[in-house]
Amino acid sequence: MSASRPVFYVSDGTGITAETIGHSLLTQFSGTDFTTHRIAFVDSTERAGEAAERIRAAGEAHGVRPIVVNSCVDPELSRLIAGSGALMLDVFEPFIAPLEQELGQSRLARVGQAHGMVDFDSYHRRIDAINFALTHDDGMSINYDDADLILVAVSRAGKTPTCVYLALHHGVSAANYPLTEEDLEHDRLPPRLRAHRGKLFGLTIDPVRLQQIRQERRPNSGYAKLETCKREVAAAEAMFRAERIPVLSTTHTSIEEIASKVMSTLGIQRGMF
Amino acid sequence: MSASRPVFYVSDGTGITAETIGHSLLTQFSGTDFTTHRIAFVDSTERAGEAAERIRAAGEAHGVRPIVVNSCVDPELSRLIAGSGALMLDVFEPFIAPLEQELGQSRLARVGQAHGMVDFDSYHRRIDAINFALTHDDGMSINYDDADLILVAVSRAGKTPTCVYLALHHGVSAANYPLTEEDLEHDRLPPRLRAHRGKLFGLTIDPVRLQQIRQERRPNSGYAKLETCKREVAAAEAMFRAERIPVLSTTHTSIEEIASKVMSTLGIQRGMF
Repeated sequence: MSASRPVFYVSDGTGITAETIGHSLLTQFSGTDFTTHRIAFVDSTERAGEAAERIRAAGEAHGVRPIVVNSCVDPELSRLIAGSGALMLDVFEPFIAPLEQELGQSRLARVGQAHGMVDFDSYHRRIDAINFALTHDDGMSINYDDADLILVAVSRAGKTPTCVYLALHHGVSAANYPLTEEDLEHDRLPPRLRAHRGKLFGLTIDPVRLQQIRQERRPNSGYAKLETCKREVAAAEAMFRAERIPVLSTTHTSIEEIASKVMSTLGIQRGMF
Repeated sequence: MSASRPVFYVSDGTGITAETIGHSLLTQFSGTDFTTHRIAFVDSTERAGEAAERIRAAGEAHGVRPIVVNSCVDPELSRLIAGSGALMLDVFEPFIAPLEQELGQSRLARVGQAHGMVDFDSYHRRIDAINFALTHDDGMSINYDDADLILVAVSRAGKTPTCVYLALHHGVSAANYPLTEEDLEHDRLPPRLRAHRGKLFGLTIDPVRLQQIRQERRPNSGYAKLETCKREVAAAEAMFRAERIPVLSTTHTSIEEIASKVMSTLGIQRGMF
């Protein structure tokens, strides 16, 4: 029997840092089956003790030693968690000494504001960008002058999640332009987009995949027919080529990767929230 | 002169893992001024060489040794990047040997699908949740039966960004309920929410902060008056207390923290996308 190995992302904050690096690490060990849990806001000896107990119990239940990916900054809390008997992977510890030496400065013995609100201005930029994405999601009534970039694609090719991600994590105001049947009859850019060439990025998708997505949304509609999907995608791709709009297929690409590639292609440099 | 220290998040993928841990590390050294850059998709010796050159040049321009937070899995690429002379912090390296030993298995010598599309089903869940959040953002015309949770708050207290985050990163279908003037005249739950008690979570906010946010949105409106904000927030908080709805103040809380706390309070366990 191959037992599933319990993995705990333990943090004195949200646990996002621990989960992000832990998840990346685990994907490099695909031969093992993992069961993951997040224990967030472990910011007192009491909560650390509770976490340790929960981890220890999971090890007993699974009959295998748990793995803890730990981002608690306070060594006392980490020590308590290690009392669970788990393999401890401390995500900050290996990097603190080299950084202290390089910077000639000691680390702060408290939780970093890694995902805290850094300042009012940048928070505002983030919220404004989210509101921008939501308000302009229908591609109508948009003043494209205010957009940092414009994603152009047929319906359901991945524009909306990408806009939302760009807003939430980079404070980028991303607008949509959904290509209509009428647009697709021409090989040229729709007139409303012509003044904004430098902001345009095209998304495309495998027609079979598009058909699946549309079928879930509007079963057995003309819109969801494979033939419609093939025709629309071919027309959109021809237009992108003719107009030299950069383009990316979303078929096998995560939202994060699409967002990263759009930003690097259009030369938009922004930090990450 | 205190030069700004250049930091590069270098990755063979999106750079999100490197940036997440790097950002957490840097916040523990608040005495230093950092200038951060992301170099994503470094997946060939050519791109690694270009990255090294860019990093080296930044060190010369700033007159200080750059720091590289590196998540490239291929040691050959990492070696080329180290040629820049930067302090190299490899985010995976310290954890690979202990994991290999614990799991009795070698790591895969390729990029993990950390932020890749894991499978069609989970991708669908994510997209569906985003669509749910967008469709239901106005709090109208919602079938709350389909919601995993419902955020209840006065206008501009932070419901929308939280719903979007929950959808994007946890595939949680989160709905909004914006408390209206009429709702706030009573100390009771609005009728439409009564059947959904177990899914409710209240958000509150400092009235002064709320006033700032509303003022940016609709300057000098009655809606943005400090008195209006104070009255609405007090009424909402009284209602949450009377109905024993869990509540959190968003004033000094990041979107990530709000989302984490809502999930843990309502007992919703979901992995992270």
